[in-house]
Amino acid sequence: MTRVLKSYLSGQWVAGSGRTSTLHNPTTGAVVAQTSTEGLDLGAALDYARSQGGPALRALTFAQRGELLSAMASALHEHRAELLELGTLNGGNTRGDAKFDVDGATGTLAWYAKLGGRLGDRPFLVDGETIQLARNPRYVGQHIRVPRHGVAVHINAFNFPAWGFGEKAAVALLAGVPVLCKPATSTALLTVRMFEILAAAQVLPAGAISLLAGSAGDLLDHLGPQDALAFTGSSDTGAFIRSRDNIVRAGVPVNVEADSLNAAVLGPDVEVDTDTFDMFLREVGKDMSQKAGQKCTAIRRIFVPRDSLDTVREALVEQAAGFVYGDPATSGVQVGPVATATQHRDVRAGVERLAAAGRFVHGDGGPGTPVGDGVDGGYFVAPTLIEVEGPDVDVVHDLEVFGPVQTIVPYDGTADQAVAAVARGRGGLVSTVYTDDKRFAIDAVLGLAPHHGRVCIGGKKVADHSPGPGTVLPQMVHGGPGRAGGGEELGGERGLHFYMQRTAVQGLKPLVEKIAGA
Amino acid sequence: MTRVLKSYLSGQWVAGSGRTSTLHNPTTGAVVAQTSTEGLDLGAALDYARSQGGPALRALTFAQRGELLSAMASALHEHRAELLELGTLNGGNTRGDAKFDVDGATGTLAWYAKLGGRLGDRPFLVDGETIQLARNPRYVGQHIRVPRHGVAVHINAFNFPAWGFGEKAAVALLAGVPVLCKPATSTALLTVRMFEILAAAQVLPAGAISLLAGSAGDLLDHLGPQDALAFTGSSDTGAFIRSRDNIVRAGVPVNVEADSLNAAVLGPDVEVDTDTFDMFLREVGKDMSQKAGQKCTAIRRIFVPRDSLDTVREALVEQAAGFVYGDPATSGVQVGPVATATQHRDVRAGVERLAAAGRFVHGDGGPGTPVGDGVDGGYFVAPTLIEVEGPDVDVVHDLEVFGPVQTIVPYDGTADQAVAAVARGRGGLVSTVYTDDKRFAIDAVLGLAPHHGRVCIGGKKVADHSPGPGTVLPQMVHGGPGRAGGGEELGGERGLHFYMQRTAVQGLKPLVEKIAGA
Repeated sequence: MTRVLKSYLSGQWVAGSGRTSTLHNPTTGAVVAQTSTEGLDLGAALDYARSQGGPALRALTFAQRGELLSAMASALHEHRAELLELGTLNGGNTRGDAKFDVDGATGTLAWYAKLGGRLGDRPFLVDGETIQLARNPRYVGQHIRVPRHGVAVHINAFNFPAWGFGEKAAVALLAGVPVLCKPATSTALLTVRMFEILAAAQVLPAGAISLLAGSAGDLLDHLGPQDALAFTGSSDTGAFIRSRDNIVRAGVPVNVEADSLNAAVLGPDVEVDTDTFDMFLREVGKDMSQKAGQKCTAIRRIFVPRDSLDTVREALVEQAAGFVYGDPATSGVQVGPVATATQHRDVRAGVERLAAAGRFVHGDGGPGTPVGDGVDGGYFVAPTLIEVEGPDVDVVHDLEVFGPVQTIVPYDGTADQAVAAVARGRGGLVSTVYTDDKRFAIDAVLGLAPHHGRVCIGGKKVADHSPGPGTVLPQMVHGGPGRAGGGEELGGERGLHFYMQRTAVQGLKPLVEKIAGA
Repeated sequence: MTRVLKSYLSGQWVAGSGRTSTLHNPTTGAVVAQTSTEGLDLGAALDYARSQGGPALRALTFAQRGELLSAMASALHEHRAELLELGTLNGGNTRGDAKFDVDGATGTLAWYAKLGGRLGDRPFLVDGETIQLARNPRYVGQHIRVPRHGVAVHINAFNFPAWGFGEKAAVALLAGVPVLCKPATSTALLTVRMFEILAAAQVLPAGAISLLAGSAGDLLDHLGPQDALAFTGSSDTGAFIRSRDNIVRAGVPVNVEADSLNAAVLGPDVEVDTDTFDMFLREVGKDMSQKAGQKCTAIRRIFVPRDSLDTVREALVEQAAGFVYGDPATSGVQVGPVATATQHRDVRAGVERLAAAGRFVHGDGGPGTPVGDGVDGGYFVAPTLIEVEGPDVDVVHDLEVFGPVQTIVPYDGTADQAVAAVARGRGGLVSTVYTDDKRFAIDAVLGLAPHHGRVCIGGKKVADHSPGPGTVLPQMVHGGPGRAGGGEELGGERGLHFYMQRTAVQGLKPLVEKIAGA
């Protein structure tokens, strides 16, 4: 019998009735679970979180909330092996992919647990210094940041069912705000299991976390002015959420992390068979193979100086051709399937649009010949490289193909052209410049900065130390302007600010100081 | 002949053709000017600002941009007498009201000029410390904030044609971003004159400031991912702007500063005829009389402990009855008309709705008997106080009546009930608690904080030093959650962040440090 998922709402495990959604194994197409959220009282679930979870979390200090996160990380880590298997079963993850997701979740929880310790025995943040506001030094102002009194609603993407939950929850809970997590239905099996583990471990106060395993239903209609909404997914869905009447009217803050045509820019100074070139090749390859290219931060556009195009192309093709590809449960496989039938269709349609503007230099967006048994019904796209004539091809900068697909874009080798071309992506999460030329690095980074939430610099001296641009670190902000949604997550304490209200307090100095120190 | 206003776009004074809007003298209803923006090429105007003003400003350091602001303030201040007269002519301002607006503009420009000096010889901001990101200490991250490469579009409210322009422009220009200002058409005469002065003084680089004097036309349709939009006005218009397809799709950051049911909470400890009570009375009265109550920060709801309701009501009524009211050009007049015929209609309709839920204790929302000649065609609403039975009357918390109208709301004298009642406003700009009881102050301030951008504490020791909650200071944030729009302006350097992209830079330590220091 197919497993039926439940949601964890108002402190209870509940199943919807009526219309169900079906979850699949992307490697075979087999059904692995189904779920429904019809008939669930989402308004009551939010009220429960607001009235039970909120006060409980706000009564704690950052250090105490950090301890909760630490307990969450430990409870999840104890079940690591099982969680990794679910990443493969319902996400098409290789073991490495699943580790990236699951360890990313526990690692981020653990990192924010430590931040909680550093923020110490305070329930809210003090922002900046006390400012004298009148001639008389006794009348002052002080900014504080206090937890919002609502729920942090997290709508996550299908590609990171573990990390997406973990990183958003870590930040909101540390801020003192309860969480309602709505994972993408298609890969929710892993998230549901994480909630089962956390609920059983009883490490959190009642109402601190809730889970909606399936369609969002009328969830957004119940949000009010003290709630906050963080969304990761497509620009289209982000736009839909942002313009919902209730969200707009209630002034609900919305953080969107959406499409991004992340770029790798190879500097004109970098020769093949150098450490810097190998780093470039490795990081580009990692973003094609890892999670089958299904990372919002993955490199989509590879900018190559026209002078070295032939040799660079050769190396890129050789690397792509070498990836072992197929059933992610098979040892040695580096590239699994994409996660859903819809993704499969979209990626193949996207490849066609890209190819129409250029030419295939490796693969063709088709399934190729994946290794493994029973993979005929799976959602496979073989690694594919498409090359275009130059930076003036619009579709390369406009269409995010969310799979093991990258475009090679020759440019003239100047930082100016590279920056202008990358900027045609209209805002991205992260781009990287690979160079050992300081001037080129500085010009490119400062040129790229306004268009990105993050810019990385590769070079021979960091070749062995960089985790790659595709890895989102809790210390650094994750998000980007424009098409990428205009949001910001993580970045250490910075991430907490979204869940808190900054308030200027004005009054008598000793009283204001007492309040800030409360 | 009626004066025809021009817009200042692409470095030229241009007039639209076709449909015109008419500007009035609110004291008499007489027409003072007309304007049209039809046929103006707003896309080209934005491009001009992006391509001319943006690079010129970004090439300057904060200190140099601060010098520009200082020159703006000086040029405007030289014409102060003339500007004050326009505030009366087209805004219905008393001389005091006009000073509040015009000096607010020059004062904020001058304050941000000084901040520019303090930020010094750098073109962008460095955010936080350098962070080690790998085991090897040479791989680090550093956040920077760089100016956006677009235009700061400022859509301002009718009540502050000078300050609204000045405060928003000061912040954006110091951030390095050119400004296109669209004042409310109804009171744009003063803003147009300010632009004439600034254009004639030639204190700014070409394209740094632009003015659209009239209807916004298709302005919003031309905004792109590097632009930013700051709006002050009604929640309805804010919602309209926020949900515009182009704004949402391009991920244009939008800062909204909208409706707010600001509250004054009188503590149970405060007796009549004390310094704290006098401060309460004075600040409440100022927010009724100044600008005829047309400040987004003005106190709308007055929470009075039930035990002292009779004596407090008596004092409030006596004060309201004492205001000299009528032609703002007449010496001694303290309360002028509201600014437009539409406001006049809306305020009177709002008073009816409030009164239906309570009773008049002073005035009746009618015109009363304004002093002065020729005021029969003016937009007069006499000071009006309405009292309701208690905090459970919804309309008091939901309806912002933007005129010399306040409601008296009795409460039980506990901080808990006061906080819960104020919070029914669903998010506000500023509220104030008047008390000399420390415990009450702390409980009230921390309770009010999540629902406000600013909370003030009145008491005997600050009675002579507080500028009143209605005065927005450049040092402190201005904005509020929920109904108030969820925005933040000013707050010193904090205000600049909206116009800048925060970017995490990752790479080799000395290189990252060099970039951050560039």
